[in-house]
Amino acid sequence: MRNIKLIMEYDGTRYNGWQRLGNTENTIQHKVENVLSRMTGENIEAIASGRTDAGVHAYHQVVNFKTNTTMTVEEIRDYCNQYLPHDIVVKKAEEVEDRFHARYHATSKKYLYRIWNGKIPTAFHRKYTHYILHDLDLDAMRKAAAYLVGEHDFRAFSSVKSKKKSTVRTLYSIDIHKEGSQLDMMFHGNGFLYNMVRIIVGTLIEVGEGKMRPEDIPEIMAGKVRAHAGVTAPAQGLFLYEVYYD
Amino acid sequence: MRNIKLIMEYDGTRYNGWQRLGNTENTIQHKVENVLSRMTGENIEAIASGRTDAGVHAYHQVVNFKTNTTMTVEEIRDYCNQYLPHDIVVKKAEEVEDRFHARYHATSKKYLYRIWNGKIPTAFHRKYTHYILHDLDLDAMRKAAAYLVGEHDFRAFSSVKSKKKSTVRTLYSIDIHKEGSQLDMMFHGNGFLYNMVRIIVGTLIEVGEGKMRPEDIPEIMAGKVRAHAGVTAPAQGLFLYEVYYD
Repeated sequence: MRNIKLIMEYDGTRYNGWQRLGNTENTIQHKVENVLSRMTGENIEAIASGRTDAGVHAYHQVVNFKTNTTMTVEEIRDYCNQYLPHDIVVKKAEEVEDRFHARYHATSKKYLYRIWNGKIPTAFHRKYTHYILHDLDLDAMRKAAAYLVGEHDFRAFSSVKSKKKSTVRTLYSIDIHKEGSQLDMMFHGNGFLYNMVRIIVGTLIEVGEGKMRPEDIPEIMAGKVRAHAGVTAPAQGLFLYEVYYD
Repeated sequence: MRNIKLIMEYDGTRYNGWQRLGNTENTIQHKVENVLSRMTGENIEAIASGRTDAGVHAYHQVVNFKTNTTMTVEEIRDYCNQYLPHDIVVKKAEEVEDRFHARYHATSKKYLYRIWNGKIPTAFHRKYTHYILHDLDLDAMRKAAAYLVGEHDFRAFSSVKSKKKSTVRTLYSIDIHKEGSQLDMMFHGNGFLYNMVRIIVGTLIEVGEGKMRPEDIPEIMAGKVRAHAGVTAPAQGLFLYEVYYD
């Protein structure tokens, strides 16, 4: 069987995320598998690099599936783009070696969190940003972020319930960049816990608002209590931005 | 009475345009007048630089209204942004001299028409672009556009029914620029007839597809018959981009 890798882009606004337990109807995985199965006449399972939550977007999601189709990769890409909803796009399709697995082999990922920060809101970016009207102290946010970079137990910054699985992850970098009203926060790490980016962003926003100090971060991290971190920032500002493989 | 000028931005997707005869409920003017009237306790009439059609967007629409309110211009801007729907934004409010009239005093306007042109569609810009998959001959389109620049009778490129009113307008420039898949066509003119930009764009697309030659343009213009020009390009790619005053 052939192993096909897809690079996908999607606007998560309308969906219950990539995957959902229970009612899977309105998931991106369901839409993609439907089109691939129709295309090949096979029962296709699409494996993504990871789940994205309800309302979360992807600039670059990696997916793979096994098939016996004789279609070229360009034909696969074009078929998908013709039959997928307009808010789900296949940017590239390529044939990869049999052992490639989009989830197991991902070595690191980048997530972008985008805030629209200024007195004047935006009509065009409103679905792809979290709007914050008041000024944020970016220096304080960068100081707080520096405490999070490195290998840490991020339990306090996650919605993980299980105490069995490890909540240790490595954040390689957090870059905070503002241009005009657009405040971009880029996270690069070897893995991300459930809601980890959104809880870190929510915490950094509270630091930016002066409700928390950068120096509070190490204590929150050490305490491992979710309630001590900030609120979970809204899904609409979050993008899966890049997935890396060896 | 004070005369207040607003610079507005809106996503036209959900609306029947700035203004509509008959049922005005779902127009941008109606939404804006409602908020301004509630804010001032007066019966406000909002005058725009011109109508935008159903589904057409604005980066920069100019509006003025008369009021006795003692609110500052910042308070007016912030009140509007708090109570307007999220797809309608006041970017700036300022007090102007009594005689300023957003429509009568506009001397020229810029419209942007945005096409997403490439084999790979876009999940994020789909509501703000017209998607064309196949290649377009930009050189031929620029040649055709050159015939349209200047003072001409644009009747063939409009949906104007009346034969009484002049359909002579001056186009100062048409700039066609492509970066990646984003094909921007910027129109600057002293005035635009009903549907004029969208019909010109539809015609230029047919030239780009090789269905029409650039040399056909002068004949279409001279014939003054709407049916000889191209189809009306979709509203979703069109933005009112700038309005100029002396």
